[in-house]
Amino acid sequence: MTEVILTANQYGKAENHVVRVTRDSDRHEVIDLSITSELRGDFEAAHFAGDNAHVVPTDTQKNTIFAFSRDGITSPEAFLLRLAEHFTSEFDWVTGGRWAAEKFGWSRIEDHDHAFFRNTPETRTAVLVRDGATDTMISGFYGLTVMKTTQSGFVGYPKDKYTTLQETEDRILATDIATRWRYNRTDIDYDATYDSVRATMLSALGKEYSYALQHTLYQMAQAVLEKHDTIDEVKFSCPNKHHFLSDLSFAGLDNPNLVFWAADRPYGLIEATFARKGSDSAEAAWVGIAGFC
Amino acid sequence: MTEVILTANQYGKAENHVVRVTRDSDRHEVIDLSITSELRGDFEAAHFAGDNAHVVPTDTQKNTIFAFSRDGITSPEAFLLRLAEHFTSEFDWVTGGRWAAEKFGWSRIEDHDHAFFRNTPETRTAVLVRDGATDTMISGFYGLTVMKTTQSGFVGYPKDKYTTLQETEDRILATDIATRWRYNRTDIDYDATYDSVRATMLSALGKEYSYALQHTLYQMAQAVLEKHDTIDEVKFSCPNKHHFLSDLSFAGLDNPNLVFWAADRPYGLIEATFARKGSDSAEAAWVGIAGFC
Amino acid sequence: MTEVILTANQYGKAENHVVRVTRDSDRHEVIDLSITSELRGDFEAAHFAGDNAHVVPTDTQKNTIFAFSRDGITSPEAFLLRLAEHFTSEFDWVTGGRWAAEKFGWSRIEDHDHAFFRNTPETRTAVLVRDGATDTMISGFYGLTVMKTTQSGFVGYPKDKYTTLQETEDRILATDIATRWRYNRTDIDYDATYDSVRATMLSALGKEYSYALQHTLYQMAQAVLEKHDTIDEVKFSCPNKHHFLSDLSFAGLDNPNLVFWAADRPYGLIEATFARKGSDSAEAAWVGIAGFC
Amino acid sequence: MTEVILTANQYGKAENHVVRVTRDSDRHEVIDLSITSELRGDFEAAHFAGDNAHVVPTDTQKNTIFAFSRDGITSPEAFLLRLAEHFTSEFDWVTGGRWAAEKFGWSRIEDHDHAFFRNTPETRTAVLVRDGATDTMISGFYGLTVMKTTQSGFVGYPKDKYTTLQETEDRILATDIATRWRYNRTDIDYDATYDSVRATMLSALGKEYSYALQHTLYQMAQAVLEKHDTIDEVKFSCPNKHHFLSDLSFAGLDNPNLVFWAADRPYGLIEATFARKGSDSAEAAWVGIAGFC
Repeated sequence: MTEVILTANQYGKAENHVVRVTRDSDRHEVIDLSITSELRGDFEAAHFAGDNAHVVPTDTQKNTIFAFSRDGITSPEAFLLRLAEHFTSEFDWVTGGRWAAEKFGWSRIEDHDHAFFRNTPETRTAVLVRDGATDTMISGFYGLTVMKTTQSGFVGYPKDKYTTLQETEDRILATDIATRWRYNRTDIDYDATYDSVRATMLSALGKEYSYALQHTLYQMAQAVLEKHDTIDEVKFSCPNKHHFLSDLSFAGLDNPNLVFWAADRPYGLIEATFARKGSDSAEAAWVGIAGFC
Repeated sequence: MTEVILTANQYGKAENHVVRVTRDSDRHEVIDLSITSELRGDFEAAHFAGDNAHVVPTDTQKNTIFAFSRDGITSPEAFLLRLAEHFTSEFDWVTGGRWAAEKFGWSRIEDHDHAFFRNTPETRTAVLVRDGATDTMISGFYGLTVMKTTQSGFVGYPKDKYTTLQETEDRILATDIATRWRYNRTDIDYDATYDSVRATMLSALGKEYSYALQHTLYQMAQAVLEKHDTIDEVKFSCPNKHHFLSDLSFAGLDNPNLVFWAADRPYGLIEATFARKGSDSAEAAWVGIAGFC
Repeated sequence: MTEVILTANQYGKAENHVVRVTRDSDRHEVIDLSITSELRGDFEAAHFAGDNAHVVPTDTQKNTIFAFSRDGITSPEAFLLRLAEHFTSEFDWVTGGRWAAEKFGWSRIEDHDHAFFRNTPETRTAVLVRDGATDTMISGFYGLTVMKTTQSGFVGYPKDKYTTLQETEDRILATDIATRWRYNRTDIDYDATYDSVRATMLSALGKEYSYALQHTLYQMAQAVLEKHDTIDEVKFSCPNKHHFLSDLSFAGLDNPNLVFWAADRPYGLIEATFARKGSDSAEAAWVGIAGFC
Repeated sequence: MTEVILTANQYGKAENHVVRVTRDSDRHEVIDLSITSELRGDFEAAHFAGDNAHVVPTDTQKNTIFAFSRDGITSPEAFLLRLAEHFTSEFDWVTGGRWAAEKFGWSRIEDHDHAFFRNTPETRTAVLVRDGATDTMISGFYGLTVMKTTQSGFVGYPKDKYTTLQETEDRILATDIATRWRYNRTDIDYDATYDSVRATMLSALGKEYSYALQHTLYQMAQAVLEKHDTIDEVKFSCPNKHHFLSDLSFAGLDNPNLVFWAADRPYGLIEATFARKGSDSAEAAWVGIAGFC
């Protein structure tokens, strides 16, 4: 019989949707998270022999998440650290894992004490990878759609027999920002840093002429790494959402960059990782995180 | 052979995604619409005989949408009226149709002249049904998620052998507002009315204790019909997004309305139509509009 | 104060996902349904006064669905009839409602007794609308994608200044069939009829040259109404999924209907209702069913 | 200024949806692929300096895909190899990349010559990662939902204060199989191997009692690695789709494994990599592939 080994493995409970209300006063607070817990360690017997003596049930992981929420949740990242600490200290054979959260943003309706609406377009993300004594914390967001209606072009590219694209010095640039950044330590004011990174990226977007989406992503990363020495790495996986200029000549009309068709597929896809020079890499922590290279 | 007749029918081009930039000055404006055009009229020969002499191509409908965008777009509703006018006057056998738009909202990044981000959680909708000389304009939105963390309960309901639900005077109320309202005329300041209806609904949500989602929907409708005599009808199709109180007794913990599990399915579904007393009905215009009763 | 009335309304529990296993022998059977129950009747007090004395909880509707499943489920339609009968007979003020089901298909893996895989591409649907003594049963399916690679064209259509489409006598025709048909009674062998309607439509698709999707939809409806005198009405809401011939001339290549780009949006949308001549209409039953005219 | 370096990066055109018809005779064949091309190599100047001299446009990558399709497509994997060969040989600075395809399956309607329906529930996938002289080919599929209605249990797991789950020796096991396997060479009969791997996995599922999903995944991997010495690694990322036994005691009913509630979220998530003992690892090729550890 062919000998088969178990290399990487992790398991747990995904998308535990917790809403935690703080009601110490009439002015309530809300935190809304979807939390995934996955354990790594010695689980060979479960796979090879059907022996579950090491398999902390995914149901128990769920229960733990809800029970811990009772104590309150500050940031998603802090909550993930608490989960990691619990599972790796409680069970000898759990040597690490991946814990992840998505955070949905709520705002008060007209400054109301207890009525809210979900208002952030983007979803905030956090992933903690623990491998023995090493913690890697990766924060980010996705779903923030941005557009520049001018100050963007694409020229000077190589042409071959398959090239039909025309150069342009004025086009629409649009993308859904999906980004993750890696901290170089874990004692962070995560909420404040999140707000700052998001604002810094948006601000960088508008500042300069864009020679390509590649160029703009770099500008965003540079600004973030400049501002936050707690961050060593910034990744992007961003579609180039094509806005094609409509050819209206059939109707005798010109179209000086006024009417565009926003296409769905295919789309450009630009993925890039920018790192602080001299910083350590943490490549293993990124395996399995979708759509980032 | 069984004799078959064609009763209702309509056809056209769906989800034409137009982005129209206004660039009269350095300070650009953006309007972003997904437009669907469907024609009604005498199309029997196409179905029964494969004779396309009346079939204005869906491709032509698309071209018309993009060409008309060249002249600028004020509100989605005004644009739909222009399309209806064009198709019913240009082609004798087109006696009506349904034209619909979804509008995606953009805001300036830090008051930038030409950099924007998509920021509204909800999608604004508009449907115009023309039937001969009668126009019915229905505006609305979907995707606005709201939550009250208190001042909501559910008591006094009938119990039978299948009832296990416990009464509560303090629970979370949450829903995704999906609403449409019908105007009683078409010379409206659609953008201003939209903003007002949206704000009025949000405001009504927080004002009073909710005895059930049904009760709250009525309060929202009442406030809108009170404020806007141009509106005769308000419909809602709203999920009751259950937030179940976690039972944490397994861990020796109480849970005084602090930790909730936000469930997906099944969910409550409350659909209701509120009308101004004495107003005309326009039932036929609603056929085929999903999820409204 | 503006006087507001409640016109249409319905409410209940949506998407109760029931899996019922029959295990009378080692050879198990599976039925997999997502069931929605919505009640209609006298619910004014709940909306206007916050009085829930008539509000059969959506939770109770859910419990009833699961309890009734214990007795076994034959067809989705038969199960909906049982639910309607229960709620309208148990509660005086419930005068009708809408009950709907989606059915997911499972097949045996290699004729295994208790191992299955979900294999049907389409989802089967059923909707029962009860209004007092009148039952309207509407069955259907969606998600069945079909394609003809030839024997389809589009010519002879009107041209105007916005027309750029070229006529063609050989193109790809592709659509996702979404269809619903209305029975003229309720004592039907629903499973057998479903299988027959589905097969009849697929068969009709391939039989003749298609002059337009409109033409093909008629052929499908005609064949169904011919074969099943228990069906009075057939509706379609079908996208024309454009497969655009790639222009490969940039590479010096011809393209005799070999390489196509399957586009997403915009798409043609053809909606049509075919009825048996002389049959009663049942228009009200269709209100709120998405995407059908 | 902080010095920033570009580490990983890739870019290209995603989801080029190609339908290629073979019409050498009246009996047509169809192949339906969504293809993504992403290049890796020396693209620093584009990011840092806005210099696009190396940026082969994503539009050109799209054109190349469609032009190459003119010559016919055998398997998705073979087509990806051709794309890789082209881009890395045509442009000096392109040293590798990632090319991916999704394949949608079509069957003939009643053995028709040119009428087809999309019938496979699963989507077949292929990813080719080229890094200099090294090619890594990873095939797979997702979306194949399976269920065992008995011969599955979960006992013998550790209990702590957060454990409430009851042991059971008879439950439903259900999952959506998402799997990828890595070949140890590229001269493969990809279509035949795909069919064999899929069948082998389905067959393994039903063969033995399942002590946990972990156990079953191993059985599937073992069978595949046993049968195919061209495969060195098999990965799974599979939800444990919970089917909770309904407690019907409120209605005085027992429930001997007959009625289940199919829940959505949270869900168990089991991810595991099985490798042929002694085979080389190819960890880098997996970075960025979603949901696999």
